[in-house]
Amino acid sequence: MLATGLEREALTDRSAAEVRAAIRGKRWRGTTHDLARGFIHANLAVLPAGLALDFLRFCLRNPKPCPLLDVTDTGDPEARQCAPGSDLRTDLSRYCIYRDGRLSGEAEDLLGVWRPDHVGFVMGCSLSFDAALEAEGIPARSFRRGARIPVFTSNIQCVPAGPFRGPLVVSLKPIPKRWVDAVIAVTEQYPLAHGGPVHVGDPAEIGVDPRRAEWTTACEIGPDEVPVFWACGVTPQAVAMAAGIPEMFTHAVGHMFLTDLTLADIRR
Amino acid sequence: MLATGLEREALTDRSAAEVRAAIRGKRWRGTTHDLARGFIHANLAVLPAGLALDFLRFCLRNPKPCPLLDVTDTGDPEARQCAPGSDLRTDLSRYCIYRDGRLSGEAEDLLGVWRPDHVGFVMGCSLSFDAALEAEGIPARSFRRGARIPVFTSNIQCVPAGPFRGPLVVSLKPIPKRWVDAVIAVTEQYPLAHGGPVHVGDPAEIGVDPRRAEWTTACEIGPDEVPVFWACGVTPQAVAMAAGIPEMFTHAVGHMFLTDLTLADIRR
Repeated sequence: MLATGLEREALTDRSAAEVRAAIRGKRWRGTTHDLARGFIHANLAVLPAGLALDFLRFCLRNPKPCPLLDVTDTGDPEARQCAPGSDLRTDLSRYCIYRDGRLSGEAEDLLGVWRPDHVGFVMGCSLSFDAALEAEGIPARSFRRGARIPVFTSNIQCVPAGPFRGPLVVSLKPIPKRWVDAVIAVTEQYPLAHGGPVHVGDPAEIGVDPRRAEWTTACEIGPDEVPVFWACGVTPQAVAMAAGIPEMFTHAVGHMFLTDLTLADIRR
Repeated sequence: MLATGLEREALTDRSAAEVRAAIRGKRWRGTTHDLARGFIHANLAVLPAGLALDFLRFCLRNPKPCPLLDVTDTGDPEARQCAPGSDLRTDLSRYCIYRDGRLSGEAEDLLGVWRPDHVGFVMGCSLSFDAALEAEGIPARSFRRGARIPVFTSNIQCVPAGPFRGPLVVSLKPIPKRWVDAVIAVTEQYPLAHGGPVHVGDPAEIGVDPRRAEWTTACEIGPDEVPVFWACGVTPQAVAMAAGIPEMFTHAVGHMFLTDLTLADIRR
């Protein structure tokens, strides 16, 4: 029951429910990469009910950056559709607290700040991406350039909803030319993990300069590679921050919410 | 410009936008079947903003009966995503007005009752069904038994959201055995038109007796036929009526909203 009592390896082949229980019991405080292998990891956003209808519209109008897996009842911290028995206040290992459009701090749980008017939004993320590609025989791990995926703000505008408006944030993966078609075909099968790319080819066409680090890291494109861009789950956070909304809680980078869904569940 | 100035044939090969304009100009007051061929016809529900978040949750949790094509901004009568330039108050040829969970009347338009707190929900309907099947070489028109599709209340419970809860309403099509697999495969390609069936085979298993007329008409199953059931767009109306919600406007039966979307747009 010690915080140090578990190694990452011990949680790799556990179910999402078991990992959520370990996090809730404070037996795991680390990031969630490679945990509960085979289960869908997700982005979390918690907003007051007064903003929930517009945020929901924003997600529906921009399904590539904001693929909805679950929306809780107002005040209910359980993600009943994608993770029955879960508690969004305690089942993530680290949270970000945004106030008035700015990051005001991080938190170990949301027990002290969760109110009866809060609504939780669970959205798919691209961490399921590599597993889906590898399952189809595409050597996705070999495409990785470093620990952090390059993320940029594009000049593509999201469809607005109420106070939520702004540019699409995109992730970039340089893909060897011979694999591009196959990678596109596989990712299109997973709209709830951002789906197919939003742009293939010249980064300047969507206002991106990959040689300049922006959200995470810069990225060199090799001579035999094609730059491929996907909608990124950072978008709703960026849009909510730009709107200066009074309050929002999210997962911290790398500390995702583990759902009971598998790749097979979200394959279309 | 007369109400009688147009024949159905004259509108069959017009675009959805042209038919909406004819209806808005009171040049067409009839039902919409066979109009704007190739465009997606849709169900409409208009609710006060105070109920919109729960209704939206209901739709997201029950996508087969409630496949969302568009949700308007609060007070905005334009369905900007699926029919730019449209006006949900005037672009349908007949509406139903529900008050306190009961049908209180019909209306030619919603101009006198639309308020700044109203939200419009546009949902796919199965009228696109036959066109999709025929496009795949399946003789769907020959399966029809009469003018009205048999509709029944099943014993399958919808996933509730706030005041919205109740059984799934289903449509029944008896399909010749040799076509069943193909029909299922095609309809699964169109989740925004209710998608694949919710039940195939013995009607009693989902609490339905097809020999007894319920919502529309009874239905005999021939010896060489299989009863196949799809989620029906009547479900959200039935659930809203059962919840006794104070106010809701919908399309009248057969008087659908014509979107600019085509089958190709909603094929997954």
